[in-house]
Amino acid sequence: MKPLILVTNDDGVNARGIRALIESMRPLGDVLVVAPDGPRSAQSSALTVTTPLRVKKLEEEDGLVVYQCNGTPADSVKLAINRIAHRRPDLVVSGINHGTNSSISVIYSGTMGAAMEGCVSDIPSIGFSLCSYDPNADFTQAMQYATKIAQKTLNQGLPRAVCLNVNIPVVPYIKGIKICRQSDGYWSEEFLRREDPSGRSYYWLTGQFINAEPVSDDTDEWALEHDFVSIVPVKVDMTAYEYLKLFSSWEEKTKVNSIEK
Amino acid sequence: MKPLILVTNDDGVNARGIRALIESMRPLGDVLVVAPDGPRSAQSSALTVTTPLRVKKLEEEDGLVVYQCNGTPADSVKLAINRIAHRRPDLVVSGINHGTNSSISVIYSGTMGAAMEGCVSDIPSIGFSLCSYDPNADFTQAMQYATKIAQKTLNQGLPRAVCLNVNIPVVPYIKGIKICRQSDGYWSEEFLRREDPSGRSYYWLTGQFINAEPVSDDTDEWALEHDFVSIVPVKVDMTAYEYLKLFSSWEEKTKVNSIEK
Repeated sequence: MKPLILVTNDDGVNARGIRALIESMRPLGDVLVVAPDGPRSAQSSALTVTTPLRVKKLEEEDGLVVYQCNGTPADSVKLAINRIAHRRPDLVVSGINHGTNSSISVIYSGTMGAAMEGCVSDIPSIGFSLCSYDPNADFTQAMQYATKIAQKTLNQGLPRAVCLNVNIPVVPYIKGIKICRQSDGYWSEEFLRREDPSGRSYYWLTGQFINAEPVSDDTDEWALEHDFVSIVPVKVDMTAYEYLKLFSSWEEKTKVNSIEK
Repeated sequence: MKPLILVTNDDGVNARGIRALIESMRPLGDVLVVAPDGPRSAQSSALTVTTPLRVKKLEEEDGLVVYQCNGTPADSVKLAINRIAHRRPDLVVSGINHGTNSSISVIYSGTMGAAMEGCVSDIPSIGFSLCSYDPNADFTQAMQYATKIAQKTLNQGLPRAVCLNVNIPVVPYIKGIKICRQSDGYWSEEFLRREDPSGRSYYWLTGQFINAEPVSDDTDEWALEHDFVSIVPVKVDMTAYEYLKLFSSWEEKTKVNSIEK
């Protein structure tokens, strides 16, 4: 039986990036698409808990079925695995996102929220992002790398509770693939203030990414700036193990006497 | 000058839990509240990028100012730090959440999304959650621990890019505080299917948490089941460092010849 590949994204089922990803996956197996019905950028691992979810089949042909849903990327993966797929997916891929999800963006990214969700369900999962917000960006090289990295993941699997954050630069010739750590960075000056016609303020989220360690050559930011595809293996376990000992002095045990008082 | 403590949550500015947290923080400094105008559960680190944000002042008295905004918990923290606070907060606290955020819930939690956001901005940050969804739950012990843990954090600071995920059991006598790692776990059977009056399906997210390692005594789940407050130090850097070497065989460098073809 061919592998079943679940495809989703956060730019919505009609985005060019998900069409590129679907085409990249079709040579590798049967493709099931369950994706948001419109843009859900920066939705992180958000789930829809206060409104019901609805699903609609959009396309069906040999080896490809496409559904949209009214939820988030993480909802889409949960729905696909629990309610839509007739068998357990062998791979979850998300993207190809219009815009980078390197460095700190991993915590906000709906693309990576979907990959995390696949990973939590113990299915090898990958988020793909193209480092361009241009709606006409060229996905050709990105598609080749998506196929290659997905094939390798199908062949070798991934460690439990680890998914991949793949970012792809937009340059004439990509130099190859680098395995990286997440760069330290942040967004600065983040809100644009405007006034509506009645004089009341409102704010638009905006800002500029600052790479806090531009000279380190082992980060995803460095790889992308040097024309490499970056792959960061990302953990679901967010425990800061290296500090457990430091915090051990914070532990306390209430004395039985004081309990009985 | 007194410390400035930024308080937010994901249950909304009118929730009992944030009122409990405000009261817990007032003895420690000046309190600035910027919180969502209604429930934003399971919003993770989601940001609002497609609609403008609005802010409204609700209360002002000596040592306490309360604002609501129409965004997510993470938006609230960004807005507070960038646009509302007159000085840089010394501490960000989020909660007290109505319901647990232990184990895998950390990745979905809006409470922890807010704490992560404070942490990304280099401010010591803590998410507090009470292990009860009962709207009339007793916050008395939780408030005492919130004050104690916040005071310790103000005194000692936290390591850079690390925040605290604090969960508090609802039991007659809490036995103390345990420093823990995030338990391995997942949610099972997650969607309830219903039909609307015209016969179309819709789904409600639901399910049951499964602790994948019930006998390990170093996890947050274990601590909570044994009547301790659990503190997990949580990292913003999600890199799976232990697997960087494993993946190094995936690296490739395109040959100059093939580039020039």
